[in-house]
Amino acid sequence: MRNIKLVMEYDGTDFIGWQQQLEDRTIQGELIKSLQSLSQESPTIYGAGRTDSGVHALGQVANFKTASSLSDDSIKNGLNFYLPKDIQVISAEEVSDKFHARFSAKSREYRYCISRRMKAIGRKYSWFCKYKLDLEKMKQASEYLIGSHVFSAFSKYNEKEKHYLSDVKYIEWHDENEEITMEISANRFLHNMVRIIVGAMIEVGRGKLQPVDIQKILKSGKRENACYTVPPHGLFLYKINY
Amino acid sequence: MRNIKLVMEYDGTDFIGWQQQLEDRTIQGELIKSLQSLSQESPTIYGAGRTDSGVHALGQVANFKTASSLSDDSIKNGLNFYLPKDIQVISAEEVSDKFHARFSAKSREYRYCISRRMKAIGRKYSWFCKYKLDLEKMKQASEYLIGSHVFSAFSKYNEKEKHYLSDVKYIEWHDENEEITMEISANRFLHNMVRIIVGAMIEVGRGKLQPVDIQKILKSGKRENACYTVPPHGLFLYKINY
Repeated sequence: MRNIKLVMEYDGTDFIGWQQQLEDRTIQGELIKSLQSLSQESPTIYGAGRTDSGVHALGQVANFKTASSLSDDSIKNGLNFYLPKDIQVISAEEVSDKFHARFSAKSREYRYCISRRMKAIGRKYSWFCKYKLDLEKMKQASEYLIGSHVFSAFSKYNEKEKHYLSDVKYIEWHDENEEITMEISANRFLHNMVRIIVGAMIEVGRGKLQPVDIQKILKSGKRENACYTVPPHGLFLYKINY
Repeated sequence: MRNIKLVMEYDGTDFIGWQQQLEDRTIQGELIKSLQSLSQESPTIYGAGRTDSGVHALGQVANFKTASSLSDDSIKNGLNFYLPKDIQVISAEEVSDKFHARFSAKSREYRYCISRRMKAIGRKYSWFCKYKLDLEKMKQASEYLIGSHVFSAFSKYNEKEKHYLSDVKYIEWHDENEEITMEISANRFLHNMVRIIVGAMIEVGRGKLQPVDIQKILKSGKRENACYTVPPHGLFLYKINY
């Protein structure tokens, strides 16, 4: 059996999320249907990270085993032929048998787009924030999150989670064309972690919290001390590093 | 009566076009409904240019007369409150009684976005062209269209049209992030003119026509000598100059 690595882009708007469900439209589900049409096989497809309903991806990675002898390009083009327009396979590549999209990943990068203006064009790809934001304070606040910390205050409680440790490698901010983008890289992300961090950063940016409050919230470990979860449509799974 | 100028952005995807229709969803129709809700008036709304079904706008301009004493900002915010999310009023401003969105316009600028890659994200805002394109030849070809010419070869036949003269001020090309953008400015645009010009440029870019063939097609004045009309979703009404 060959092990195939896919890099994919998708528009999360009309999906209930990555993970296959019995009735709802999911990225994994559409991918399985397309693979069945292409190769008459139904392998398990492993994704690097689950994305929630409405969350987009520019570089989601998945892998699956196949007995097919189709070339890498034929797998890519064949899948794109069967896939709906809101999912695109960017590349397909045969990789070592040991490669696993989720467990082999060293780090993941997400981006969150905050729009300073209510937009009609591209309104499903950024979240409009009505407050005037002090970006310098947001940058200062995000520095407290860099490094290895217990992120229970910045994640949704999940009884299956063994621990809430995450090693945040960097948080970078860009501000152009009326859009603020936060880029965050970490070895792992807990459920809703990026969206809860952005919610807290907004509170700092609008002056409701001071940058140092982020450190206090982090240390408290309590979700109720952090703020709201910003909407999914500003969030992009950007890249998986191996 | 006060004369109000609006600058608007809209996502043309789910509209049958600018102009009000009895049953279909149009930008003008939504604007009239919102104005009725805001001011209990039903004035005629004049648009600077009609956009077809699926065509977007970043800077459409319209004007209407009102007896309302609402401030410019209240008109803008009030309309945005009632308008659907795919239309946004960017600014509302009281102007001289003589201002007419269509007849006062000196020039209009459109942009057409051609994507070099089939995309999932933003797929409704650019047209994917599967051919390898020689942008230098496309630039050369577009030079033949600059200036005042009869554009009957590059427009849809319309029996109501008195003449097909248009003065093209510039055509500029940008190539970045896997996207080629053509910016075109003219005193007036004929029906489907930008989309037929882009179709011809694609034929030059892929080597089916030579740049000088564009001059021949232009001089022939015959629509059947030009090429196909590219789809509407790559087209943006960008700016109206007064």
